[in-house]
Amino acid sequence: MGEFDLIGRLAAALGEAGPAVTVPIGDDAAVLAPDLVVSTDLLVEDVHVRRATSAPGDIGWKALAVAVSDLAAMGAEPLGAVIGLALGAGWSEDEAVAVYEGVAACAAATGCPVVGGDVARAPMLMLAVTVLGRAAVPVTRAGARPGDVLAVTGALGGSEAGRLVLEGQVPAPPEQAALADRHRRPRPRLREGRALAGVVRAMLDVSDGVASDARRLAEASGVAVEVDLAALPLQAGVAAVAAAQGVAAGAFAATGGEDYELLVALDGAALTAASVPLTVIGRITDGAPGVRFSGPGADAGLRGFDHLRP
Amino acid sequence: MGEFDLIGRLAAALGEAGPAVTVPIGDDAAVLAPDLVVSTDLLVEDVHVRRATSAPGDIGWKALAVAVSDLAAMGAEPLGAVIGLALGAGWSEDEAVAVYEGVAACAAATGCPVVGGDVARAPMLMLAVTVLGRAAVPVTRAGARPGDVLAVTGALGGSEAGRLVLEGQVPAPPEQAALADRHRRPRPRLREGRALAGVVRAMLDVSDGVASDARRLAEASGVAVEVDLAALPLQAGVAAVAAAQGVAAGAFAATGGEDYELLVALDGAALTAASVPLTVIGRITDGAPGVRFSGPGADAGLRGFDHLRP
Repeated sequence: MGEFDLIGRLAAALGEAGPAVTVPIGDDAAVLAPDLVVSTDLLVEDVHVRRATSAPGDIGWKALAVAVSDLAAMGAEPLGAVIGLALGAGWSEDEAVAVYEGVAACAAATGCPVVGGDVARAPMLMLAVTVLGRAAVPVTRAGARPGDVLAVTGALGGSEAGRLVLEGQVPAPPEQAALADRHRRPRPRLREGRALAGVVRAMLDVSDGVASDARRLAEASGVAVEVDLAALPLQAGVAAVAAAQGVAAGAFAATGGEDYELLVALDGAALTAASVPLTVIGRITDGAPGVRFSGPGADAGLRGFDHLRP
Repeated sequence: MGEFDLIGRLAAALGEAGPAVTVPIGDDAAVLAPDLVVSTDLLVEDVHVRRATSAPGDIGWKALAVAVSDLAAMGAEPLGAVIGLALGAGWSEDEAVAVYEGVAACAAATGCPVVGGDVARAPMLMLAVTVLGRAAVPVTRAGARPGDVLAVTGALGGSEAGRLVLEGQVPAPPEQAALADRHRRPRPRLREGRALAGVVRAMLDVSDGVASDARRLAEASGVAVEVDLAALPLQAGVAAVAAAQGVAAGAFAATGGEDYELLVALDGAALTAASVPLTVIGRITDGAPGVRFSGPGADAGLRGFDHLRP
């Protein structure tokens, strides 16, 4: 059972959301008329984060950051967040408070105050974060057109490289501190998302890796996407970590996930109008919906992280 | 560590939510200016629900219903919900879909469409439900004044009695089907909440039992609350179950929790103006914030369910 399949079946079980819902299940966030954006994310211990490599405050930061990133990907401005905390058996009250200090730091950095929550006991730590925002013109994944270019903000591969360094799976490169920080405390691209909202036709955040996220954009927009792995912008230190793993750097950066950059489709002529630095990594064509990779490491089966596959 | 203590420490770690937030952490729901109401609830397997006594569809219904009940308690109208599903190791894809069919049934019954979500693997099933609503005049827990009466909608004790019957802990009374239904598929009092919003001074839903929820009202409003256990309206069959447990019926109904009726404080003269049937169960006085019980089973230590105590 894969994540894509199960989500499809669950969405079918729920049926239609009704006419008041502008963007229903399936995008980075839903839009409740007229401009209210909402998204929810689970952060589960030993699935998304590990105590061995992240401090409690890092875990709290990341839980809120990955949810706020979905607001960024809609071009939205945060209004606030609510958090459900399942307190793992091995977690003390002091550690729970330390988790929330990390949440608070991210809330301050992103302008997304936590306004409510719930707590319960559970076998492991889990944070369920829901964020609310407003977007004058919410940007979905569905607007890409043949002829558009595919582009990305910032640099990729850093979070996965940071994880491998933190877990001691690869020799630590000189950039190890920045890579570890990228893994532990990702920065949602809120400013970039709002700036791009008037310029791009489709946008989503790179949460599971470009390989998976480009496929989401392709399927939502009903277009074919070509990705040149050699064009992917790499965070400093990623090439060395990928080499240590024996993987082509572009393929490594496309599948690692958790970078939380923004992946967009836009008219190539609009690239100069974007006030945000973008790297073109591919193009949109009118073939069957799906992704084709080129460049070193290209493989039709390339894909990012799937939360339901072991 | 109790639920009240930890929530206080977590809220302190988060700090101030800022001026845009009308009602921050601590009420049934938060209010984001001007009239946007949001609340989140966790439903954890073996903590809030058990597979032995609830079908997957019941679990889905209850997960959404308890969250929607918080909207009812603010006098709000639902806009939509998002759900984070942590899929327990022992749960099949078909069972997860059956859970969502129960969610969909409750969504249809309450007018609260599910607009988004997230899925992840976890050791046990957990549903993190966030609901959004609108309220022209959100009703908090903080408005009760000395001289007000304390009143409640509907009847109490049915959910806990249903749980005991379903678990075979007591002989099944003739009303067993209705009690089981009350436990498995609680009905949020949305219509009642909206009707009472213009009439009452303070309102919350009875999630953990009047014993705990009256204390929440007392502390939020800074008033003393007197509860007459003999006045509590009992669901049919509750008295027999309480007797089988050797507990005074009023004390049983005050501590069982999960009835999801509405507990309100209002001017006694306004009782006739309320278009919703209410039962007066006590009064508000100007003593130190807290609750005093009278009637059979009265005990200063009486309290409802605490999610963090074993």
